Amino acid sequence: MPHINLTNEYPGIRSLFIYRPETAAPMNALVQAMLHNPHPSLSAGERELIATYVSRLNTCKYCCNIHGAIAKHQLGNNGDIVQQVLSDPETAPISSKMKALLKIAAKVQSGGKNVLPADIELARSEGATDIELHDAVLIAAAFCMYNRYVDGLATWQPDDAELYDKMGEQRAREGYLTPPFKVATGDSQ
Amino acid sequence: MPHINLTNEYPGIRSLFIYRPETAAPMNALVQAMLHNPHPSLSAGERELIATYVSRLNTCKYCCNIHGAIAKHQLGNNGDIVQQVLSDPETAPISSKMKALLKIAAKVQSGGKNVLPADIELARSEGATDIELHDAVLIAAAFCMYNRYVDGLATWQPDDAELYDKMGEQRAREGYLTPPFKVATGDSQ
Repeated sequence: MPHINLTNEYPGIRSLFIYRPETAAPMNALVQAMLHNPHPSLSAGERELIATYVSRLNTCKYCCNIHGAIAKHQLGNNGDIVQQVLSDPETAPISSKMKALLKIAAKVQSGGKNVLPADIELARSEGATDIELHDAVLIAAAFCMYNRYVDGLATWQPDDAELYDKMGEQRAREGYLTPPFKVATGDSQ
Repeated sequence: MPHINLTNEYPGIRSLFIYRPETAAPMNALVQAMLHNPHPSLSAGERELIATYVSRLNTCKYCCNIHGAIAKHQLGNNGDIVQQVLSDPETAPISSKMKALLKIAAKVQSGGKNVLPADIELARSEGATDIELHDAVLIAAAFCMYNRYVDGLATWQPDDAELYDKMGEQRAREGYLTPPFKVATGDSQ
């Protein structure tokens, strides 16, 4: 049960966005700019992988499931890449550059000062650009916010994999600025 | 030296906002909504105290100094309250409700799931409302992002207390949506 009376039955961060629209607007605009809008070189799926991985490190079930589902739909595969990244980025079928960016994301998750020049140099040696380094750090930092917000208020986080898949398909297609849809069961997302 | 070439000499998060205006806009809008805009019951100074305290827990010099300076100007005192909160919130001259909200903020900083029903009940027994609990959690979560962003890219964080005081006075008066000013020394903020 959520720590406060959210006066709605949406899951995860959606319940908080409906409760407090004043802060929801910039938080949605930020995730849209970071993850969905066109990027010079990182695909939306690659950026969603960073968000998913950090959410797993923070053990946030809702964020990890929804961004994992969005990543799956963005990457156009059956979800194997997402699961392999969550199991072990080092052995996942992703580029060496992405592996280096995920290492930096994990450092950010454990504390900003843990990102060392050697981490940056490794990523550069694998082809990472300044904007990619910037965005990997910001995405990781931002999910340290979203994850804490969702868990810190004890929001409802369903176990239904199909629900996350449907929400993920919508967000992969539409981005983050459209209203969440109601599902046929009467549950709302 | 910053991890990437920011192409400007502004300090802390300002250098990142100039480097990446696409994400700066929602990040500035969020901090304005959380900390500066009118609130049903928490003063701007009280909200800045939460931001300052979490920034100290995350050992982010730039954010702790600038929000400490803003809090000082918002609270209309000589800065003693800010320093006392940073030393030990329990003995600082703030309300029991603020002490309970700062405890929750510290829990959020260490991880969202660490906020327990007992923490919420304690704050409620001291008079905290749902919106206050929500905003304390969100402010703490958001500074886990801002702090990691500033430190994760190794931005320039000056030691000059007078500089932070000037920047803090401006932000306390104008909020977060006006451009940073240039100082007479040629340093930029």
